[in-house]
Amino acid sequence: MHTQHAKKKTILVGQSGGPTAAINASLAGVYETAHACGAHTLGMRYGIEGFMRGGVVDLDERLADPLSVELLERTPSSYLGSCRYKLKPHTQDPEPYHILFERFEDFGIYAVLYIGGNDSMDTIAKLSAYGEEVGSDVRFIGIPKTIDNDLVLTDHTPGYGSAAKYIAASMSEIVRDSSVYDLKSATFVEIMGRDAGWLAGASCLAESSGVATPDLCLLPEVTLDTDAMLNVIAHVLEVKNTAVIAVSEGVRNASGELVCATTQDAADGTRLDAFGHVASLSGTGRFLASLTRNRLGCKTRAVELSTLQRCASHMASSTDLHEAHALGGAGVLSALDGMTGKMTALVRASDVPYLVETALVDVQEVANKERKVPRSFIRSDGMGVTPLFERYARPLISGEISPIMAGGVPRHIDPLGGGLA
Amino acid sequence: MHTQHAKKKTILVGQSGGPTAAINASLAGVYETAHACGAHTLGMRYGIEGFMRGGVVDLDERLADPLSVELLERTPSSYLGSCRYKLKPHTQDPEPYHILFERFEDFGIYAVLYIGGNDSMDTIAKLSAYGEEVGSDVRFIGIPKTIDNDLVLTDHTPGYGSAAKYIAASMSEIVRDSSVYDLKSATFVEIMGRDAGWLAGASCLAESSGVATPDLCLLPEVTLDTDAMLNVIAHVLEVKNTAVIAVSEGVRNASGELVCATTQDAADGTRLDAFGHVASLSGTGRFLASLTRNRLGCKTRAVELSTLQRCASHMASSTDLHEAHALGGAGVLSALDGMTGKMTALVRASDVPYLVETALVDVQEVANKERKVPRSFIRSDGMGVTPLFERYARPLISGEISPIMAGGVPRHIDPLGGGLA
Repeated sequence: MHTQHAKKKTILVGQSGGPTAAINASLAGVYETAHACGAHTLGMRYGIEGFMRGGVVDLDERLADPLSVELLERTPSSYLGSCRYKLKPHTQDPEPYHILFERFEDFGIYAVLYIGGNDSMDTIAKLSAYGEEVGSDVRFIGIPKTIDNDLVLTDHTPGYGSAAKYIAASMSEIVRDSSVYDLKSATFVEIMGRDAGWLAGASCLAESSGVATPDLCLLPEVTLDTDAMLNVIAHVLEVKNTAVIAVSEGVRNASGELVCATTQDAADGTRLDAFGHVASLSGTGRFLASLTRNRLGCKTRAVELSTLQRCASHMASSTDLHEAHALGGAGVLSALDGMTGKMTALVRASDVPYLVETALVDVQEVANKERKVPRSFIRSDGMGVTPLFERYARPLISGEISPIMAGGVPRHIDPLGGGLA
Repeated sequence: MHTQHAKKKTILVGQSGGPTAAINASLAGVYETAHACGAHTLGMRYGIEGFMRGGVVDLDERLADPLSVELLERTPSSYLGSCRYKLKPHTQDPEPYHILFERFEDFGIYAVLYIGGNDSMDTIAKLSAYGEEVGSDVRFIGIPKTIDNDLVLTDHTPGYGSAAKYIAASMSEIVRDSSVYDLKSATFVEIMGRDAGWLAGASCLAESSGVATPDLCLLPEVTLDTDAMLNVIAHVLEVKNTAVIAVSEGVRNASGELVCATTQDAADGTRLDAFGHVASLSGTGRFLASLTRNRLGCKTRAVELSTLQRCASHMASSTDLHEAHALGGAGVLSALDGMTGKMTALVRASDVPYLVETALVDVQEVANKERKVPRSFIRSDGMGVTPLFERYARPLISGEISPIMAGGVPRHIDPLGGGLA
C-alpha cells in the first residue's frame, strides 16, 4: 500500500477509549487536513490493539465522497472502532513496541495521530518516548477526546460539549415530565463521570432561563452526606411538589466508597477495566431514590442517562464538533511541522465573546493526570454549581448541527463492518 | 369569570394520564381553534382531580402571545398538569359527579375536552353518560393521547409518533455505541409499553437503511422464551461482535409473570396505580442482561430509555405534533357542532403517500379496550417486526420540528407553577 503512495506522507490515525459524539469530527479533521496537505490517511481498526492484529483501513478510499465526511461528522461512537488496550512500559513488555514499530515501517508511516482521553495520551507518551529512544522518525501526536472533560492543559475536551448539551436538554425535559402530577416526588438523574463532575454539573444548564434546572446536583468532588441531602430534598418539597436531583455515578460516601457499590447489584455493575479503573458504574440513582422513598415517604424515580449521553449525535453541539474537527486538523499540521510527543489543546482567549485558540502541549504532562471541577465552580453547600461554572460551560453547548435525516431518523455513515478476523 | 365572557361559549380543557411530547400540541389545537371560533378557553389544573379542588387557569390570558403557543407546542409533559384519578360509577360514588357538574355550572362551561389515553376516555364516557342522565347541556369530547398507541378505533394516537421517533433515533445511536470494541457483547435496551409492543417495535425503525436496527425485538404480545432468546443471541454473536436487543418493559414468561417482577427489586419497581395497572415497570433489561452474561459469558449492558422516551420534545415528529394539534381542534369543532360522548380519531386513507383524516368515534367504544400489535406485524419467530410494521409506523415518525433554542438548550413555555394550595 505504501509503494502506491510512495511520494505522499502517510498519516496513521486511531481512536481509543470510550465513544463520544465528537470523536468522528476529529477523525474528519485529520482526514480533510491531511488530504488538503497532500498526505495519505490510514485508519487503525480498534486502536493500537486492532492495528497490531492487522486492522487497517484506507480513509482516502472510504471518505472520497464529500457526503461521507458530512455523515462521518454526524455519526456517534468511533468509526474506526476503539480499544482500551494498556501499553506497559517497554522495559517490562517490549513485544508490542516491536510489533507496532515494525508495522509503522511496513506502512511507511510518517506520523501517528491518536484520538482519545487520558489513557490514550499515556499510549502516545510511551510510544513517542520509545520512538525517540530507538531513533525512529515516526511522529506521535495526541488529539484530546473525552466526555469527562478531565484532561489537564486544555480548556476543555472535545466530546464534552455535546454530552453536556444532551444532558442539559434532557434534564430540561425530565424536570417537566417529573412535575406533571400534583403530588410530592423526587427524581434522581444519574449522569456519567467517575471522578470528575463536569457532566453532572452540565445538568444545571438545563434552561437558559434557569427555571427548569435540577434542585440539587451531586458531584464526585464532594463527599455525599445523605442526611444533608435528605434535608435539602425535604425542604424543596415543602415549597413545591417536585425535587429533581442530578447525581454523578461516581459520588462517594464519607468512607470513600462509591455509593453505587453499596447497592445490591454492585457485584454486577462494578468491574475494573484494563487501566484498573472501575469500568462501569450504575445504580447510584436507584440507591438514592430508594433511600429517599424510605426516609421521606415520597414517590421517587431514578433515570439513568447511560450511554445515551455519550452517543447522542442528534443533539451535538456545533461548537464542540467544530473544535473537535479543528484539533484533529491541528494535529496533522503539527506532525507535518515535525513535532512529536505533543497533544493538541484548546486555550480560551475570552468567555464573552467566546474565543478559543489551538495550542500544542507536552503529552507527557497530560497522561495520567486528571482535572476535577474546581471548588469555585461548586456551590458552598456542595450540592450545586455556581455562576462561574455556567460562564465556563454554557459556550461549549451552544450552537446546533443539522442532522441529515432519512426516514425520520438521523442517517449515519455506513459502518466499516464487524470485528477483525 | 363566566359573567365576564357571558356572550362567549366557554371550553374547559384538561390533560390526564402520563406525559407525552405531543399532549401540549393538542392543547394548542384546542386553544387556537376555540379562539378562532370566538370561544373562551379555560384549562383544568391537574385534570379533573385538580379541577374539583378549584384548579382553573385562563388560557386566553396565558396564551395571548403567539410565541407562547409556539413554545407550548414544543414543551413536553402536560402544561396544565395531569392526574390519574379514577372516577367510580356514579351509582357507587355520586359525590365527584355532583362537584364536577356544579363547577361546570359555576364557570358556564359549554363543553369539556379531555386529552388523554384509555383511562381518560373512561372518564369522558362516564361524564357524558351521567350528563345525559341528568339532562345537562355540557358536551364531553375526548382527545386521544398516549405514547403506548393502544387505543382502539383510531389508526394511531398522538404522542406515539414522537416517542417512536426518539426511540428509533436513540437505538440508531446505541447500536453504534455498543459496537465500538472488538469484543463480544450484548446490549439490552428497555422500552416502555406495559401490554402493547408498539414502542418496542419502533426501535426497528432505527435506520432508514436498515443497517443499525436491533437484532432482536421482544414484545409483550409474545411470551418470552429465554432459552430461545439466548440461542438467537449466541447465533448473532457467531457472525458479528455485538447483539442489540430491544425489549419491552412488559414482556412476560410462560407463567404469565412479568420478567421484571422476577428481579430482586420488583418490590420497589412494581406498584399498582389507581386503575389497578402496574404503575412502574423497570428492571427487565437488567434482568435479561444479567442472565445473558451468566449464560453466554459475554459482556452485557442494559440501557433504560425511561421517561426520556415520552418527554423528548427536541426529537418530536412533526407529523405527530401536527396531528395532535388537528385532533384538539377537531374536538372543539365537534363540541361546537353539539356533539357529546365522542373521541376524535385518525383514519388512515393511504400509506403511500401517507394521508389521514380526522373522524369522531363513540368514546364508550374506546374506554377500557386495548389495541395490541397484530400478529402480522410480528416476525414469525416472535423476536422482531415485519415490513408491515414499518409500513404502518415509518410515516408517523417522519418530519422534524425546529426546537426554539436559547443558550444551547430547547426553550419551553414558562411553567404555570407549583401544585394547588
